[in-house]
Amino acid sequence: MDSGDELRAKFMEFPYVSGSQRNLMVELLSSVDSRLGSSLQPCTLPPDVQHFENPTGSARASLHLRSGLPSSQIDFILGGWIHCELPSGGALNITSLSAYLKPSTDAPHFLLELIQSSPTSLVLILDLTPRKDLILYSDYLKTYYEDTNLDKHRQRLQTLPQVKPYLSPSLYIRAVVSPTAILVCIDTEDDETTNVEDIIRDHVGPIAKELLQFWIESCACLERRVGEAERDYLAERDRIIKTKTIEVDLGSSFPRLFGQEVADRVLDVLKEYYSK
Amino acid sequence: MDSGDELRAKFMEFPYVSGSQRNLMVELLSSVDSRLGSSLQPCTLPPDVQHFENPTGSARASLHLRSGLPSSQIDFILGGWIHCELPSGGALNITSLSAYLKPSTDAPHFLLELIQSSPTSLVLILDLTPRKDLILYSDYLKTYYEDTNLDKHRQRLQTLPQVKPYLSPSLYIRAVVSPTAILVCIDTEDDETTNVEDIIRDHVGPIAKELLQFWIESCACLERRVGEAERDYLAERDRIIKTKTIEVDLGSSFPRLFGQEVADRVLDVLKEYYSK
Repeated sequence: MDSGDELRAKFMEFPYVSGSQRNLMVELLSSVDSRLGSSLQPCTLPPDVQHFENPTGSARASLHLRSGLPSSQIDFILGGWIHCELPSGGALNITSLSAYLKPSTDAPHFLLELIQSSPTSLVLILDLTPRKDLILYSDYLKTYYEDTNLDKHRQRLQTLPQVKPYLSPSLYIRAVVSPTAILVCIDTEDDETTNVEDIIRDHVGPIAKELLQFWIESCACLERRVGEAERDYLAERDRIIKTKTIEVDLGSSFPRLFGQEVADRVLDVLKEYYSK
Repeated sequence: MDSGDELRAKFMEFPYVSGSQRNLMVELLSSVDSRLGSSLQPCTLPPDVQHFENPTGSARASLHLRSGLPSSQIDFILGGWIHCELPSGGALNITSLSAYLKPSTDAPHFLLELIQSSPTSLVLILDLTPRKDLILYSDYLKTYYEDTNLDKHRQRLQTLPQVKPYLSPSLYIRAVVSPTAILVCIDTEDDETTNVEDIIRDHVGPIAKELLQFWIESCACLERRVGEAERDYLAERDRIIKTKTIEVDLGSSFPRLFGQEVADRVLDVLKEYYSK
């Protein structure tokens, strides 16, 4: 069986995506390691959940999950990649990084997903997910989204002609993200001078790194005073967010990509972490 | 002084907008009258709040507000139009219809706004505004937005090449609308065969009428059992929605359009209705 270090090295290879996407993911995960590593446990996922594939080998994936130490505000951080050959001849490649905080703080969670289903098209989801109802808690909207001018990242990206708004088919996903969420489709099919790889390197990368930096310093590392009743509220709302994320995102795609048996094995383990 | 009937007739003229926009507004208000009229009081706004203009006469507006009777689930229904000559030579025309329910039901509010700042460009906001946090109350999302397939209206409109997503500059507005909200900009500048008037008549109109019909039958007229604690929650969340709507929407534009004195007179009266 592979050792923890070997499994982590295999995860960090991101073997199926372009150079700029791989570099971005490695840089983001290195930032997490260097700034938050001392607050995190090593990955405790079973080896066959850290790497798995479907029976025919046409779909492969790697997951790396690190829980926060008891003293940390971090619940867990999950990185992953999925590669799946498509019947049409191309491939679907997803790389993601999500980070959840504990109810000891009300600061937003972090979410990044890069979904590439063709060489000329990329869906980008990048957000600091709110932990509270932004209507009932208007201070929260002000503190994390208005006063920080968080919308500037989306505005910057939206100036590119290849970038179009992306609307998730899931109403739950539309409802859970923040009003400054970056949900875009980057399409370079009609563009002979710029490709998706360039746009990741020159535009998506700098924005993702800046947002992760902000999340690390102002959300994960900054202590917030949260009262008892508020903790219960956050814990319950987070429980729903995590249950729904498994159900809507992974639960619907994993059986299709990896077959029911592999999907069940992986999802059962993930559910334990998501429901802690 | 004008009588109530004369004031209402002046309001219903919608004198500055295109035929198709006027017809649509008159049809929507007639539906409200015929189906809900017996549950509503006559308009009790002072005459100088039902019609007003700025000192130079370059900006005019009309408002018509009817409160629900004590036995009704309707809090109040507000229709309005604003016309403002622009320094550039054109004009800004807004027509709107919003309808708020009481905390005796948790069904969504209704919101329609048509904002035309040039003959070739229209912003449309059409939504059933949720009364509850859609994450904490996932049943609510299912009942009013998923099971009803409410997204089909947005999908239908989005197939037109002249229709582009519209993102409000206000993060509060982005947060308060539902995940099926229609927030679009209709632009016909590069189109020689179709104009905004056609699109209102053939596409916006049928959708707005269908959505209002749904709201009247399934929200305003259907009784829901709401417990005591839930009523308090709805009352508090509605109070914030109504305060913010005055602040973000009318409070920021009225002084600019009508001067501080007229704006204060109108807003002071509206605030009474919005804070009841």
